[in-house]
Amino acid sequence: MARLIQFLLSPPSRLVRLAAGEKRIACTVAPAGDNHAHLPVWEEQDGRRLSGIWAILDHLENTYPEPSLLPEDAEERGEALRLLDWAMTVFHEDVTRRIVFEKATPAQTGSTSRRPPNMEIIRAGRTALRTSLPQLGALAEARGCLAGRQLSLADLALGAHLSALDYYGEIPWTELPTLTEWYYRLKSRPSFRSLLADRVPGQPPVPHYAELDF
Amino acid sequence: MARLIQFLLSPPSRLVRLAAGEKRIACTVAPAGDNHAHLPVWEEQDGRRLSGIWAILDHLENTYPEPSLLPEDAEERGEALRLLDWAMTVFHEDVTRRIVFEKATPAQTGSTSRRPPNMEIIRAGRTALRTSLPQLGALAEARGCLAGRQLSLADLALGAHLSALDYYGEIPWTELPTLTEWYYRLKSRPSFRSLLADRVPGQPPVPHYAELDF
Repeated sequence: MARLIQFLLSPPSRLVRLAAGEKRIACTVAPAGDNHAHLPVWEEQDGRRLSGIWAILDHLENTYPEPSLLPEDAEERGEALRLLDWAMTVFHEDVTRRIVFEKATPAQTGSTSRRPPNMEIIRAGRTALRTSLPQLGALAEARGCLAGRQLSLADLALGAHLSALDYYGEIPWTELPTLTEWYYRLKSRPSFRSLLADRVPGQPPVPHYAELDF
Repeated sequence: MARLIQFLLSPPSRLVRLAAGEKRIACTVAPAGDNHAHLPVWEEQDGRRLSGIWAILDHLENTYPEPSLLPEDAEERGEALRLLDWAMTVFHEDVTRRIVFEKATPAQTGSTSRRPPNMEIIRAGRTALRTSLPQLGALAEARGCLAGRQLSLADLALGAHLSALDYYGEIPWTELPTLTEWYYRLKSRPSFRSLLADRVPGQPPVPHYAELDF
């Protein structure tokens, strides 16, 4: 069986688990511990080893092509990759790092910071979050999934981030009915189950985190 | 002709210019100005528009397949993508952001910070830089190029970062003969010419920045 070395609440790790889940690839998960190297790492049973989401997603898509997580249509494919890139750079920087990486322990995110949570940073993250979410809701409403009608890496990448934020109850769902409907569909997929079972020691999730009826 | 909307010293923008150059795709370059959105943006003459390096590099590789910037061999391809991902996440975070984004003006990098350069951050970046460079030199010595014998996105991604650092004279070349030899070969390629012509207003580069004999 394949093995994933990961940080529990780190979006790149969550994205790989979702992608593997959609392709029905069984994998065991190993915590990264104090090894704050370039993660996540994907190890195939035959010894092949991939580091970082660029290499891992490319490997999964080439080795396990069904179902594809990238649309065939060039425009929709470009849009899926735009949203994937945006989630892992702009949204990560402006929102997830400021909220999840402040609240969680370094062992859960791979952050190298050892200082206590800074409320000013968390508040700046919340402001950026409230700017971004309605745009995502509008995409989901217009298209069904974020990049088009087909589930793609865009949905999984944003799902990876929003699920980590939702662990701490940071998403104002009641203000966002369209996005809630999209997230509910995503959260109900079998690939999401392992994420909903995650528990950070000493930091239980908000009650609705793992609920499929909210 | 295609058009690239970019930040002059931002590694993702430099990487796209290098990739386009290797594929001999002519493009004009437009500064991003105050638009600190999700950049770089690549616009084809027919109106197709790609945002972020994931979408742009995928588009360039599919639309202009020759020469390919990803090795055919699966292991070498995984290694090229590992280094690409590492350059754009770990190295960017630990080194380039701490040095180049502190020294340059926001208009050159897309940084949203408006405070003066923080010497403590720059020093931390230099420490991380000195840890990383010998590893890259060892790869170049063992393999010729960073991921193998063939030039790939790994070389261009690291070239994008090191060239921005070199603009400010931050690379201790004399301590790193193997890496210097690799960088000299890269810098001599026609794709590198447009980067060497870059000038930040009010901040001339160190004298050796654009020299091909150093």
